Amino acid sequence: MSDNTQLNSKLDLLKIEIESHLDSYEDQNKIIAPNLNKAMKYSLMAGGKRIRSILAIHAGLMCGGDKKVLLDIAPCIELLHTYSLIHDDLPSMDNSDWRRGKKTCHKVHGEDIATLAGDALLTDAWDLLIEQCKINKISDSVIVDLIQTLSKSIGSYGMVAGQVLDLENENKRCNLETLNKIHEYKTGKLFIGSLLLGYKLSSSSKEEELALINYGKSFGMAFQITDDILDVTGTTQSLGKTAGLDETLNKSTFPSLLGLDKSRELAKDYVISGIDSLNIFTNSESKKNLINLLKYLLNRNS
Amino acid sequence: MSDNTQLNSKLDLLKIEIESHLDSYEDQNKIIAPNLNKAMKYSLMAGGKRIRSILAIHAGLMCGGDKKVLLDIAPCIELLHTYSLIHDDLPSMDNSDWRRGKKTCHKVHGEDIATLAGDALLTDAWDLLIEQCKINKISDSVIVDLIQTLSKSIGSYGMVAGQVLDLENENKRCNLETLNKIHEYKTGKLFIGSLLLGYKLSSSSKEEELALINYGKSFGMAFQITDDILDVTGTTQSLGKTAGLDETLNKSTFPSLLGLDKSRELAKDYVISGIDSLNIFTNSESKKNLINLLKYLLNRNS
Repeated sequence: MSDNTQLNSKLDLLKIEIESHLDSYEDQNKIIAPNLNKAMKYSLMAGGKRIRSILAIHAGLMCGGDKKVLLDIAPCIELLHTYSLIHDDLPSMDNSDWRRGKKTCHKVHGEDIATLAGDALLTDAWDLLIEQCKINKISDSVIVDLIQTLSKSIGSYGMVAGQVLDLENENKRCNLETLNKIHEYKTGKLFIGSLLLGYKLSSSSKEEELALINYGKSFGMAFQITDDILDVTGTTQSLGKTAGLDETLNKSTFPSLLGLDKSRELAKDYVISGIDSLNIFTNSESKKNLINLLKYLLNRNS
Repeated sequence: MSDNTQLNSKLDLLKIEIESHLDSYEDQNKIIAPNLNKAMKYSLMAGGKRIRSILAIHAGLMCGGDKKVLLDIAPCIELLHTYSLIHDDLPSMDNSDWRRGKKTCHKVHGEDIATLAGDALLTDAWDLLIEQCKINKISDSVIVDLIQTLSKSIGSYGMVAGQVLDLENENKRCNLETLNKIHEYKTGKLFIGSLLLGYKLSSSSKEEELALINYGKSFGMAFQITDDILDVTGTTQSLGKTAGLDETLNKSTFPSLLGLDKSRELAKDYVISGIDSLNIFTNSESKKNLINLLKYLLNRNS
């Protein structure tokens, strides 16, 4: 087996555990509006790599955290990520028909229900996070810290700001500095927030926190550059979402600004600097996984 | 001065204090995407009665709470309420052009930015709530309790569920039981959440909590019934939002099911039972205000 296949089978195992947790979160007895929960679950369980939860879990394990605690709590991040995908796909935003190989939420459940399903995921995430933390006897001060870290990652000073900058740069050619800023916020902030969730559940070393922030920055950029490359080189079938969408929306991307070859070089540079950030940690299975996850971005096909 | 005018001038004073807090929350130095913050602020500062914050503050004061603490923290609720209005007004939802006497957010800032402005308000609210609680030395366990209470009030088992039930009952005649359920969730849950925010910052008496939940239930129903009545009897100018929208959307309402007279009677019944719920509290200025707020619903014109 190649390294890549080995990584994939390991990721798949963790992904299955994460999805089993996600699936168990719903409380059937409390459902008020069944069609809302159906739409939420449709998008939440529509697959995806669960990369944010995986980053959180491995970051936590590398910092000495407990796997059961991390596995109970980290999947809450998928609610936040899924909300952003549902709203991103809406007709007034990217107007996308496909996501993770399935019809997008609004294509199946209607634009109104999809909007509200995103809202509910963005709201329930906090309640669920608190609930899972309480089950695992996490202190209230850590819970407050997690909520503040994650809400800062995705609010008006985080991910949503990046989404707005991204929208504003459709139909015009922006420079590399602006493109970097867009993705630092749109993609990078939630990766960093996820890594910090794992860290805060496991450690309080400022040195480890800083190393993970640097790793997350590199991860976010490498992820986005390879995402841009795939949008050009992949097919809708292999990606599970509409290929060529960036060109359709006339977005500036790394390939459109730098060309494919230079974009690949830049992604490699970020992978190397991301791996370097982890130098302070002693070797462990989780550190190896975080390194391989970065390398894997260079060969990803979806 | 009539009782109503006196109440209005008192409400206006508190409203001005609440808005001055709301205005001060924004951190100019941290802004990443100025157009996002502009859209958020446009809707957040577009007026409105600030009734949820006012309920929170008076409930807290009635339970012996500190006015400075309540005034710092309660206005965070307005971010949650404003998000729900922005998304409610979207073309795929109520498709409303007017709100609080101004063009709706998507009419001014576009549908994409309006969607994201709602998302950002729904996210920043938690960060802000935590920040204001920390400034006021509120314990982490109370902060966690506030976040869980409010997120439950507005998530898939709260307000959003009510919004979905409401959408599903457009273009059909539902019965009174269904209509009650819609408004219990769509309108009532956030009123109760707001009252409990004030209570949890001030008291831990289970008897007081229960009394406030009952008051909130009655307040929500009286508010919604008089809202439905105003949609029939008011004008777009007097309401500051599109009048007659319920009929346009073919929604079941209290007047459409019961007629105007019986709807007015029902609102009065809820006002009486809401006032009764407060019997356990000793007399105070805040209790009087909560009673007058309920009575005021019967004479409101916007």
